[in-house]
Amino acid sequence: MHPSFKITGIFLAAAVSACSAVHHQSDGASDPLVIAKQGSFFVGGQEIKDKNLSLLPRYAPEGGGTVSVNQMYVRYQTPVAAKKTPLVLVHGCCLTGKSWEATPDGRMGWDELFVRRGFSTYVIDQVSRGRSASTVSDVVKVKAGRASAEALPQVFNAAHESAWQLFRFGPEYPKTFAKMNFPLEAQGEFWKQLVPDWYNALPVPNPTVPALSLLATQLNGAIFISHSQSGIYPFQVAAANSKNVKGIVAIEPGACPSPTSDMTPYVGMPILILWGDNTEKSPLWAPRPKQCAEFVAAANRAGAKAESIMLSDIGMPGATHMLMLDKNSVEIGEWLADWIVKNTAP
Amino acid sequence: MHPSFKITGIFLAAAVSACSAVHHQSDGASDPLVIAKQGSFFVGGQEIKDKNLSLLPRYAPEGGGTVSVNQMYVRYQTPVAAKKTPLVLVHGCCLTGKSWEATPDGRMGWDELFVRRGFSTYVIDQVSRGRSASTVSDVVKVKAGRASAEALPQVFNAAHESAWQLFRFGPEYPKTFAKMNFPLEAQGEFWKQLVPDWYNALPVPNPTVPALSLLATQLNGAIFISHSQSGIYPFQVAAANSKNVKGIVAIEPGACPSPTSDMTPYVGMPILILWGDNTEKSPLWAPRPKQCAEFVAAANRAGAKAESIMLSDIGMPGATHMLMLDKNSVEIGEWLADWIVKNTAP
Repeated sequence: MHPSFKITGIFLAAAVSACSAVHHQSDGASDPLVIAKQGSFFVGGQEIKDKNLSLLPRYAPEGGGTVSVNQMYVRYQTPVAAKKTPLVLVHGCCLTGKSWEATPDGRMGWDELFVRRGFSTYVIDQVSRGRSASTVSDVVKVKAGRASAEALPQVFNAAHESAWQLFRFGPEYPKTFAKMNFPLEAQGEFWKQLVPDWYNALPVPNPTVPALSLLATQLNGAIFISHSQSGIYPFQVAAANSKNVKGIVAIEPGACPSPTSDMTPYVGMPILILWGDNTEKSPLWAPRPKQCAEFVAAANRAGAKAESIMLSDIGMPGATHMLMLDKNSVEIGEWLADWIVKNTAP
Repeated sequence: MHPSFKITGIFLAAAVSACSAVHHQSDGASDPLVIAKQGSFFVGGQEIKDKNLSLLPRYAPEGGGTVSVNQMYVRYQTPVAAKKTPLVLVHGCCLTGKSWEATPDGRMGWDELFVRRGFSTYVIDQVSRGRSASTVSDVVKVKAGRASAEALPQVFNAAHESAWQLFRFGPEYPKTFAKMNFPLEAQGEFWKQLVPDWYNALPVPNPTVPALSLLATQLNGAIFISHSQSGIYPFQVAAANSKNVKGIVAIEPGACPSPTSDMTPYVGMPILILWGDNTEKSPLWAPRPKQCAEFVAAANRAGAKAESIMLSDIGMPGATHMLMLDKNSVEIGEWLADWIVKNTAP
């Protein structure tokens, strides 16, 4: 190491410390971001032998070869002087970790917002989606005539029109709800986030769940922020690995645990269920806040620290299902960071 | 903005300037990284109507819906005081932008190395791979009985054993070449990077090419670093959009342009073709350096500034096809950054 480095290093440490204070108080993405460490890696997965990897001889030996399946891609950033407990961000249906990155209208995503708030932040792609490989073995098998069409996976692309309704931009495409914060002017960019969803072709629980559990263990404890389809996953992780789940934020979960299920994993656990507007106007969403409220009550009776909050009840009306991308996403994210700091002592 | 911000801001600017100097001179990933801006977005793509998006009614209207296809995912980081011309990193066969991120044995990837060297760095996922959505319409159509198995896409998972040979870890699995720098102790982590490859199911030129061209235009000029399968793409971009291609680094390209093709797009263009070891021992790779050498000669006769370099000839023996992940990847990357600075005046 160059002898002048130590002096520079001390100066740097002081500077970084000053920078962090600026970040915390400023409006976000306009100040430089100081990263102590960043990278990406995989968690979980198995190696299997498969005879239907490719019909092109160059890419798979005759008689079959080995392929890695069920691994989960993880990208992370750690700020200088990070809080002890990291956040793990888990996206929902038909999407990837991109959900948490820059918004369709080009504003800072929650991945960076939480780093600026001092959290090490881990963004995953669910198994079989994005950079977490899917397995096309059944497609190859049927194309080769080694199986019939029923063997094909139940995979789908979500239509914009259906996602519009599911994500509650309005009651049905192309109508909008009266107060609705999604930046529809950037919808073209948003739709590009949608990827094929292999959820229905995967076993239950989804292989993402053991991978998340392994990640929580590797991190020596994590706070999960889930969304929609993935809402149940952190609860499933907690059921098997409670000590490494330091808190759960379920944003508009597709389901909460049954109120009659074992509540032991959630004793003492900070849990927040967060809802946007207009759930009551959606046949799909209407029952869900009620079902989750029953879980919250049961969990609290057992000693959890759970709450269910409608954003409109705390002064942030107009939230859609994609609230991390809504026009006031930074406002919601800052509120959520405050909630996490207050309730989980990260 | 808080009144004290400006004073803090001046201090921050001085600090960042000092930090940058430290980064440039240090060994890399151990110092904090100062990012002026980061984010992700999509380039290119079309919206199409499709009647085979899903067999599950929730996700697509009866009679069909709209889906976005052929868009390209891009993630970028811009350092403070970035050089004028950004780098665009384009991965190869069966892989995603993960190729350029942290290595399988946990070291800094080239995405960060180039940012630390002052380049705005853009990492893409090829169309139909990773976070760039593929279209499973033909799978849905065949599963629904609306088409026969021949309509299925020619998609494949590469077997570890085949990739071993293609990536020249050795002449055949599990043999290794005598001098070989890939961190095989981390091969389990590396194999998890492999994803299904839709290359053979896509039109020619690959939709990634117009998307890269659009990106180069949006960036007002870019230097491309391609790898393997994507080696020809930046040349195809240059053929249509030469003024926005400020340089091409083709790492072990699958093909170079024909030496009898039009060389006009490459006049004055800095071009580097870079090779690892043992190409001559691989039936697949043996002809390629020769074919590219013929292109380099033809391009230079027309006024390009092209060269083809074997890493073993410049003191870095043992490079594999995945040289950005080899044990000496930082050494190669630093040399490459020097080459780019010297030859492209970024």
